[in-house]
Order: sequence, then C-alpha cells, then structure tokens
Amino acid sequence: MNLKAEALKLHKRHKGKIEIISKIDIKGQKELSLVYTPGVAEVSREVYRCPSSIYDYTSKGNIVGVVTDGSAVLGLGNIGAEAALPVMEGKCALFKQLANIDAFPICIKSQEPGDIINIVKNIAPGFGGINLEDIASPKCFEVEKALQDIGIPVMHDDQHGTAVVVLAALMNALKVVDKKLNEIKVVISGVGAAGIAIARQLLCLGFDQNYCVPVREIILCDSNGIIHRGRTDLNTQKLELSKITNFANIKGILADALVEADVFIGVSKAGVLKRKDVSRMNPKSIIFAMANPMPEIDPKDALKVAAVFGTGRSDLPNQINNSLAFPGIFKGALMTRAKTISPAMKIAAIKALARCVRVPTKDKILPSTLDKQVVINIAAAVKKAALSGK
Amino acid sequence: MNLKAEALKLHKRHKGKIEIISKIDIKGQKELSLVYTPGVAEVSREVYRCPSSIYDYTSKGNIVGVVTDGSAVLGLGNIGAEAALPVMEGKCALFKQLANIDAFPICIKSQEPGDIINIVKNIAPGFGGINLEDIASPKCFEVEKALQDIGIPVMHDDQHGTAVVVLAALMNALKVVDKKLNEIKVVISGVGAAGIAIARQLLCLGFDQNYCVPVREIILCDSNGIIHRGRTDLNTQKLELSKITNFANIKGILADALVEADVFIGVSKAGVLKRKDVSRMNPKSIIFAMANPMPEIDPKDALKVAAVFGTGRSDLPNQINNSLAFPGIFKGALMTRAKTISPAMKIAAIKALARCVRVPTKDKILPSTLDKQVVINIAAAVKKAALSGK
Repeated sequence: MNLKAEALKLHKRHKGKIEIISKIDIKGQKELSLVYTPGVAEVSREVYRCPSSIYDYTSKGNIVGVVTDGSAVLGLGNIGAEAALPVMEGKCALFKQLANIDAFPICIKSQEPGDIINIVKNIAPGFGGINLEDIASPKCFEVEKALQDIGIPVMHDDQHGTAVVVLAALMNALKVVDKKLNEIKVVISGVGAAGIAIARQLLCLGFDQNYCVPVREIILCDSNGIIHRGRTDLNTQKLELSKITNFANIKGILADALVEADVFIGVSKAGVLKRKDVSRMNPKSIIFAMANPMPEIDPKDALKVAAVFGTGRSDLPNQINNSLAFPGIFKGALMTRAKTISPAMKIAAIKALARCVRVPTKDKILPSTLDKQVVINIAAAVKKAALSGK
Repeated sequence: MNLKAEALKLHKRHKGKIEIISKIDIKGQKELSLVYTPGVAEVSREVYRCPSSIYDYTSKGNIVGVVTDGSAVLGLGNIGAEAALPVMEGKCALFKQLANIDAFPICIKSQEPGDIINIVKNIAPGFGGINLEDIASPKCFEVEKALQDIGIPVMHDDQHGTAVVVLAALMNALKVVDKKLNEIKVVISGVGAAGIAIARQLLCLGFDQNYCVPVREIILCDSNGIIHRGRTDLNTQKLELSKITNFANIKGILADALVEADVFIGVSKAGVLKRKDVSRMNPKSIIFAMANPMPEIDPKDALKVAAVFGTGRSDLPNQINNSLAFPGIFKGALMTRAKTISPAMKIAAIKALARCVRVPTKDKILPSTLDKQVVINIAAAVKKAALSGK
C-alpha cells in the first residue's frame, strides 16, 4: 500500500488523532460532587480570589493551543482552516508523544491578521502557551509580534522551531567540516517565515552578543533572485534584511550567490539548486535542502558533492525537522510559566539540541525525532535560561 | 475534610481535569511519517478536495467546544474567563465520562456578544458542536441566535439543557399527581436564561404543536415581581413573554402568582418561596426549587407540603440537573452530523429522558446522572428526530 492509501486508512480507522479524557474517574456521586457542582464552585472561587492558582487547579499550565489559519500548510499552500486540521492534530499528537504536553488544535476561518490576533488574545485564558503554525508570511510576523504581551508564551514554529533546528544542525555540521560560524558565508534560498527567522538567528538579531556569534556573510534569495539594496519589490522583513546582509550588494540569481559560499540552506522548493552551481561553493560545503517533500537538489547529486547533506526527509540521513525543537522549547517554557520565549531560551535550545549528538559525523549531525532524551535536554536548558530571566 | 478542602485537594493533585492524548501510538518513524509529514499532507489534500471528509479523517465529528465568557458561572455570577475554567473542565470531563464525547473548554476574555459570536464562528472548523455555557442573560440569546447557521449545532445549555430536564421531570411528576400538562398553571421564579427557556418550552414556542402540548397558564416572576403587560422595565425576551403568559394580567409578587398554581419552578435564589405561600397552591402541588447550592425553599418545609419535590442537589431525591440532558443531546446530534439542535430534537430528548423512569414515584421522577442508559436513550431519540429532518 502506498503512503497516501496508508495515511488515509490510518486516519479513517481512528477518526483523527486526538482524544480528550478526564484525568479524574467520575465513579459515583462523590466524585461528581467534587469535579462538578457543588464542589467545583469552591475551585472557581479560589481561582477568582487568587488568579495565579489557575496553574494549580486547572489543566492550563500544560495545555498548548496549536493555532493556524491554514494559509501556508506544509508544502500545500493556502488550503484553509478545515484542510489544515489533520496537520494540526498531528502536531498535537507529537506534543503529547514527545513531551507529554496536552495540545489542542484551533483552526481559524478568518485569514485576517487582526482577527487571528483578537481570537488568540481572547482564548488565552485556557492555554499555557500558543504554537502558531502554518500562517503565511509576511502576516505571521505581525501576528506573532502582537501576541508577545498576552501573558503566555506565543511562538510561531515555522519561524523559530525551524531556526533552532537549522542552527543546531549547522553548529554540528561545522564541527564535521572544521569551520567556524564567524568565518562562513551562508546562502539562504526561500525568504518566507523560515528563511527570515534563520537569517535573523544567524545574524543574532535580538540576541545578546555574548550568547551568539553572527556569521560572516549571508545572501538571501527569493523567487526573484538575490535580495539586494536595489530591489523595489521587498516587503518590510526583506527590506530590513537587505540592509544587514549581502554586504557587497551583489545582484543576480541563486547561482551567483553561491560563489565561495560555505553553506546552502534551502527552505524554498524542489529543484532550485543545480549540481553545477554547488561546484561554485567553497570546498567542504554544507547543504541543507529542506523543501518538502522533494528537496532543493536531487539527493543523489548532493551526496556526491556536499561534505554534509541534510533534508526534511525521514528516509535520508540528517533529517532536519521542527519536531526536534518545539516539544522541548514549550516544555521548558511551561515548566517555568514563562511569559514569552526569549532569545536566550532559543539559544539555549539550539545549544542543547546540538549537544544531543556527542560526536557529530557526516551522517549524523542531529539526534532522532523520537529520541526521548532530546526533549529532556532542551527543556532543561530552556528552563534554565527562562529562570535566569534572560 | 469539608467539601471545599476536598475539591481543592483533588484538583491540585491532578492539576485540573482534562488531558489530551494521541489516539495513534507513534512508536517509530513509520507512524511518524503517517500522522505527520509527509503522510498527513495526503490527508489534508483529501479534506481540501472533499470538505465533508473532515468527519472521516479528523477528530472534529466527536469534539464539542464548551464556550463561556465567565459572565454567569453557577451561582457565582460574573467571575470572568479564568475563574470559569474549572467549571468548564468539569463539564468536559462529564461529556467524556457520560457520552464518550471529546470536549474542550474555550474561555473567552471579552464579554461582548459580538466578540463571542465572531470567535465561535471562526474556531468552528475544528469542532463538531458548541456548548455555550454560563453566559449571562440576556446576551446569551443574541449569541446563541447568531450562531445557528454556522454549520454545526450550537446550544446554550443553561437554556435548553435545563428546559429539557425540567420538562422531563415535570412530565413524570404530573403522572405521580395525575394531572395533565394542558390543565396546569405553572409559576416560574427567575427569568434568566433557564427561566425563559423553560417558559418557551412550556408554551411550545418554536415547536410543532403535534409534538408539544402547551400548559394552561404560566406566570413568570423576576426580582421585581410578576411579569405583566404594564411593566416598563422588561428586556426583549421578558417583553415577548409578557404578551403570551399571565392571561389575566395579574400584578403583584410571587405570593400572588402562586394562588391556585399547580407547579412552582424555581431557577432564582435561596429562600424566595415561603411555606405559607405554598399553601395558596392547588392540592397535589409540584415544587422544583433548583437554586444552587440552597434551594428556593427549605427542603424540610417543602417535603411537608409538596406532592413532588425536586432540587438541583445530589443529596436529596429528585435531582434535576443539566447533566441528564446535554451529553445525550450532543451525542445524538454528533451521530447524525446535525447542523442545529432543532425543537423536535429537544422534544425527543424530553420524552426519552422521561421514559428512563418506567414508573415515576414521588421520590423518583428522574434517573441518576451516572446511569449510562440515559445517554444511550436520549441520543437514540435525538438521532431519530434529527434524521426525520424536523
């Protein structure tokens, strides 16, 4: 049976992936009188008297809302709230399986940033954190920014989850090829949510320089070519990045950007990276081709030319996947009742994830998604960073 | 240990009452590739291609959102979204325990009807039904009405759940005292969400007359006394009812209304019904005093004078509690993917609930909340009514 048939069959058999159960067995009138009226009124009274006790007496502290408007789902694009639900349920299932976090999908019909912001603000009381997911760029930036002061951590995973995993992968890949972050030139193909977040992370934007080393040079390429200071078609985020990347202000296409590059990071689409263009890169090149399901370069070609090669696929070595990051990041944030996911918490997550592989090799720069130690290590590091107040 | 201490301890030990689990065990890469990327993309594609398949491939069809703004919680009043969460979680736990329905609490910060309506409309894609809960009167009417065409059933339980249980209790109590619905005079104390819904149900408003027999006379009393056609302080709902109740247009207080009444229905507050006033009622009087936690009349007094006496309490005979109705009503609606809870579905629920007690007696007019047969019977009846298209 092929993947499609198998996935449909499995989903149909279980009617989706998530179930909500009662933590307390309501065996008789006694339990009923405690979990519901009249006993529950005393609990509500206590939360009213002391608002922070909501974390003691309700499930809030371990519940993450996985919020989308379905405007940029996986490689499928704008398929809307309903069709996004299977992906969001999958994410919720992973939250539970990997981090024992209770996650619930909220699929929003409106695709207006104002509506999304208003809804998340208003439903926040029942959640300990919000994972924004598959919201199109550039509105994802506006939505996330407006939700940073609502009292619970809100993180757009397509940005920060991806950036954390890519940076950890890059740190370990650099060990394999014996290069340093501040010496390398990085080319990023794809300047959506992920590309922008990776670039910002590589530039240490918003980060304490003591905790972060910026790379020597970054060139960003979108579907119109290299981002440079002469482009008139750039949105706010690209415009901002055009001023602090591409120092020589070169123009042209991806192939031009790749001259003497050390690292290619692809968060764009299948086939944009040609084998002959890779030959323009410096020796010991690192290629992360993460377009789904087909990478930016044919794996057979890449494996011949790259010193380290990673993709988003589980059937190749070096799978670079968000699910290595978001469970541990949220776990650490929830453990400390953090109000935001701070830059220091993200740096801590990157380093902890990189450390999960003691001796990185060409074929193993990251641990397996299902390795339970990953969440434990990231959560502990994120917790420490959160408690240090950074 | 007293009730308060015990309820707080139980809630603290479990950190609330609900947990979200994965229905599919993600044991290895194989399952991961089916429940998440790349397999889940095929499922999303299928839902996009055929929108109704969302019921086959996701959990939507069995998920009910328990939505509140915390403006009228139990007997506690307007305690807000956070303090309402323990009650909503309790309701979700009951949904699971009684009907195997997955229910999730949505506590909304804004108490503006427009916001509540907009939010419910927008988050509807992930839910099979919406249970509105503890939203203050009269805005609850506006909110519920505006949500009747969103494609999934939306029911304000404080109105219709209560009306269904009270009507079933009344049908069986009338058998005990050998009176008929169309012969009786009913006095309702309390004209909020529950009082208005009970009155409308007793008058068969919105109901097919073949399925419903209206009572002879209803007098409604709020905190300013009897509702009559001379009152200038009535909201829209009370004004509407003033035209079709209290035919003689009598004025005065509750004691005046009770003259020759057969039934007293209290959804108001402790102590409003005096023993001496009950003596004004017809022989074989029925008293449902449902104020929580203390009923409208001292149970010791009521038991001496009433032929049938019911309350909201679990420590007295004849507990009249919503939890007898909402699990079965939603179960039946979800089973048929009904788009609304129609009047015929509510009538079916009333009759099915009444039939759960074969031979009603003074001390047993309703089944126990934890009797599993109740949900089965109500769901079957509601399903039948839904499928008949009424």
